[in-house]
Amino acid sequence: MTKILDGKKVSEQIFEKIKKEVAKLSKKPKLAVILVGDNPASQIYVNIKQKRAIELGFDSVDLKYPENITEQDLLTVIENLNNDKSVNAILVQLPLPKTINTAKVIEAIAPQKDVDGFHPENIGKLTVNQNPYVVACTARGILELLNYYNINVEGKNVVVIGRSNIVGTPVARLLQNKNATVTVCHSKTVNIKEHTLNADIVVCAIGQPKFLKEDMVKERAVIIDVGINRIDDNKASYTICGDTDFENLLSKASYITPVPKGVGPMTIAGLMQNTFDLYKLQNN
Amino acid sequence: MTKILDGKKVSEQIFEKIKKEVAKLSKKPKLAVILVGDNPASQIYVNIKQKRAIELGFDSVDLKYPENITEQDLLTVIENLNNDKSVNAILVQLPLPKTINTAKVIEAIAPQKDVDGFHPENIGKLTVNQNPYVVACTARGILELLNYYNINVEGKNVVVIGRSNIVGTPVARLLQNKNATVTVCHSKTVNIKEHTLNADIVVCAIGQPKFLKEDMVKERAVIIDVGINRIDDNKASYTICGDTDFENLLSKASYITPVPKGVGPMTIAGLMQNTFDLYKLQNN
Repeated sequence: MTKILDGKKVSEQIFEKIKKEVAKLSKKPKLAVILVGDNPASQIYVNIKQKRAIELGFDSVDLKYPENITEQDLLTVIENLNNDKSVNAILVQLPLPKTINTAKVIEAIAPQKDVDGFHPENIGKLTVNQNPYVVACTARGILELLNYYNINVEGKNVVVIGRSNIVGTPVARLLQNKNATVTVCHSKTVNIKEHTLNADIVVCAIGQPKFLKEDMVKERAVIIDVGINRIDDNKASYTICGDTDFENLLSKASYITPVPKGVGPMTIAGLMQNTFDLYKLQNN
Repeated sequence: MTKILDGKKVSEQIFEKIKKEVAKLSKKPKLAVILVGDNPASQIYVNIKQKRAIELGFDSVDLKYPENITEQDLLTVIENLNNDKSVNAILVQLPLPKTINTAKVIEAIAPQKDVDGFHPENIGKLTVNQNPYVVACTARGILELLNYYNINVEGKNVVVIGRSNIVGTPVARLLQNKNATVTVCHSKTVNIKEHTLNADIVVCAIGQPKFLKEDMVKERAVIIDVGINRIDDNKASYTICGDTDFENLLSKASYITPVPKGVGPMTIAGLMQNTFDLYKLQNN
């Protein structure tokens, strides 16, 4: 029988644990969230993150700037947050407007406050397996989920579909550091199916609705679906679906994450854990 | 007919080109090489590197320290080199004695002078495909060699055997950045052959003599052998062999690197190119 990897349940246990620990502290962990422009999806994500941070007892600072903020002004905002000892974690909600060099902004964040784990120093340390301050939230969340269900990755064949710096790259590296044999497929891969058919674990982060079909995976594979795709049914409503054909994979997989309530809440859990870890790092 | 990828020939063309360019300069590129202890292999490597640097018209500084130098003293040496404007490139020959934290020493090198490309910032920028100052010499050399023989890697299945920070990790990433589909195999991979049999290109950097056998690769595969293994025939002599069973692979592969005269000289070429690139970076 296929087991659903219940990200909602596991994330709630993580939240509960953090909440109890934070309640004992006199000084609270503080997360600063920067939102530029008025992208509706970004606003929703930022709201979810801040709501959760406050619920766990964190301080959360909400910094909103118009679409036309200059790169220099944004860099100054970050520098001030870097120097502000009350702030433990800095998150810049992506994507940024095209007028701003995203890489430059990410590099401006102090690696010790880089709660998303996107700074080259943190990515580099993850890559050479040498204690990054934090690991990207989604990658961390996926590993926590696998760990909760005692799914061992050592020696397993893992295929990661997608090579973004936000998900595919860090999750591939984290799994390799746990001794999995990892193949990264992407838009230029000629035949993704020949790789996925050989995989014990497939992580799908390609951003295409129902991309991973039943005939692409082997019996009893573990399927991790990172996608969040919005399908507009009509002008008044929409449904959310992942990057995998969940309904048809359900009977074939040994474990599978649903969308929603799979990787999504685990990403938020990863963010909260990262915030708390950076707080502890800075207060030790 | 199998083609030998002639690293010696290609490296000599690279050396010739650099030499001509350097001859026109009034101020020469300067490489500082740090050697700790008296490991005979390390001494040989350092000598090869310095001899070549001088031949190309570089300045080369040779800094030798005893096995018992303290970590702090070594860090001070590096700090002084970082601050010395006449020095463009710093190389710390590995391995270091066990009393010294290698990661800490590598991190102490200014990323702009990190000629080996091992600093987390350079590895991180390579990982997110955002202009590292330099890329690790062996990885660069392998790409130059493939490029010279017009071997396109885009969309190809590549298996890298070995995940060291010096070779496997950077070459895997560089090939992925060139749109190859890369699988990294290592000591915990259960069945390396199932992966290599599916590979258009195999990069073998596992450090085991003749590890990659004829029955492990498909017809017309491209074989890159990074190994340098010393086989002692008797007390008086030894032979060098790579990580692949060259003689038996020769008729099956489409291209293959010999050992010696394959990847070895290309690594030195990569080092010389990196030194010159860092010089240009600092004099622009």
